[in-house]
Amino acid sequence: MISEADLIQRFFRGLGANRADVLLGIGDDAALLRVAADEELVLTTDALIEGVHFLPGAPAHSLGHRALAVNLSDIAAMGASPNWALLSLNLPQADESWLEAFSAGFGALAKAHGVSLVGGNVSRGPLSITVMQAGVVPSGQALRRDGAQAGHALYVSGHVGDAAAGLNVLRGELHTTADAADCLRQRFEYPQPRVQLGAALRGLASACIDVSDGLYVDAQRLLRASGCAASIELERLPVSQALRQALGDSAWRLSLEGGEDYELCFCAPAANAAAIAAAAARSATTIARIGSVVAGSGIALKLKNSVMQFSPLGFDHFRD
Amino acid sequence: MISEADLIQRFFRGLGANRADVLLGIGDDAALLRVAADEELVLTTDALIEGVHFLPGAPAHSLGHRALAVNLSDIAAMGASPNWALLSLNLPQADESWLEAFSAGFGALAKAHGVSLVGGNVSRGPLSITVMQAGVVPSGQALRRDGAQAGHALYVSGHVGDAAAGLNVLRGELHTTADAADCLRQRFEYPQPRVQLGAALRGLASACIDVSDGLYVDAQRLLRASGCAASIELERLPVSQALRQALGDSAWRLSLEGGEDYELCFCAPAANAAAIAAAAARSATTIARIGSVVAGSGIALKLKNSVMQFSPLGFDHFRD
Repeated sequence: MISEADLIQRFFRGLGANRADVLLGIGDDAALLRVAADEELVLTTDALIEGVHFLPGAPAHSLGHRALAVNLSDIAAMGASPNWALLSLNLPQADESWLEAFSAGFGALAKAHGVSLVGGNVSRGPLSITVMQAGVVPSGQALRRDGAQAGHALYVSGHVGDAAAGLNVLRGELHTTADAADCLRQRFEYPQPRVQLGAALRGLASACIDVSDGLYVDAQRLLRASGCAASIELERLPVSQALRQALGDSAWRLSLEGGEDYELCFCAPAANAAAIAAAAARSATTIARIGSVVAGSGIALKLKNSVMQFSPLGFDHFRD
Repeated sequence: MISEADLIQRFFRGLGANRADVLLGIGDDAALLRVAADEELVLTTDALIEGVHFLPGAPAHSLGHRALAVNLSDIAAMGASPNWALLSLNLPQADESWLEAFSAGFGALAKAHGVSLVGGNVSRGPLSITVMQAGVVPSGQALRRDGAQAGHALYVSGHVGDAAAGLNVLRGELHTTADAADCLRQRFEYPQPRVQLGAALRGLASACIDVSDGLYVDAQRLLRASGCAASIELERLPVSQALRQALGDSAWRLSLEGGEDYELCFCAPAANAAAIAAAAARSATTIARIGSVVAGSGIALKLKNSVMQFSPLGFDHFRD
């Protein structure tokens, strides 16, 4: 059987981008990296656990992609550049074809975003994948959650609800056309972290968060941090054609409460609308203005100017 | 039942030291930290998994301590200062008394070393604890594994073998006096990362590694990275009184092959001997000169000038 050292050498050493600021990568007690004098360090971590964040038997290539993507999404929400990743892998056994596919999925996304894998560890254990992502942002320019103000516009990128529908397709709980099912599943298995958009929003957005637990819940977090409320117009929710195909008129519900999309939800003063549109175009990402920040607390949902009642099914690991 | 957000608020927010270089800690998408212009960033990660790195039912206070200690030890081996930690916790359930003890153990060690917990995540899953530790080191001064040269002296800090014996005591596989058993168990449950010593060795040691998998195996890694061999004199191995009490004349074997001690193994030119002794005294850490670096490859073990045959029981997650 392959040894731990050989496994790291074969599947993980040199994975991702080659960066000049990596002074020492995998192979010593820790990695050594160079941070420029005018930058701040950005750190985050997120984990995928079998049976919690993915179904048993989920394809390894997708898991490699997703484990990195969910972390890159946090970096994107800060408007930062993801530079260096650490990977902590708990594996029931050293299955070489699984490792091959996992590292290919991880490596392809890492390369696409200029991320170098600089360290990690592999242990025997129930399957779980923890990534720690480090990045940098020009000093004082990070996008935080707490800068929204009444009068600002509220935006979300891409489409929301697709990933949750994709998971339902994988679970056999949602049936639709083959094309729509493929598209939704792809959105769950290969979320695209909005790193370019986040960086382009620096100096334009007043607050930003990534949509991991559902648009309603995550927007609520941003608004709470900013001490504001919002009004969201349901007609403006960016619902994909595939989701509309699968769920028809009730698609808006999953767009509000479905998690795992890894889109960005952000606010900006009305005066920045044109610059925001240009930033989105530059990052080849669609955005939708879905409502407005107002004084108060909570979120009012509006459909054709009447207020809807809505309690989202928020996900909580320890209360369900 | 306690929610995930309440759990983080109650047990983890503000844990560890208060640091002025933490611009944004727990509560946004990622943490924001300040790295000085003349410093390099140091990153590492290590995990503890139930049934692999600790026995089922192990005390939570010790797990909090150890999960951080094993990471601080990697930072120590680089001669760096540990500043910021991220914690990723997979828990089967949100047991409040377990969390209380775990965060107390983690927090006490973090405070002792000036570490601030700046982020993390908690998920439901089979018990495992992953810490990612970030630190800084003055530019160009990190201790690496690859600087040892023939003629340099080989050192190890503290005592080696105690932690492995302590685990054997906990497993009921080693019986000794109550005092010795207490002492050995303590060394397994509360390893002391040699952070002060590592920092004091900057500019003096030519190579350094932490002893996590056993002195023989880890010294071998250092020597391989440096392209050298070593000769170790068995009489010089720092064997504790407790280990001698428990194992008598065969204690040297566990001192060479037992893991989990988290001591530092390092090399230095002979001319630095007095400065090394002073650095150890300043860090209130005992050190022992156990042998010499020589040309070639491998480790020769000597007892009263005759060479011993020895094949250590190295630990490998995927080959056993």
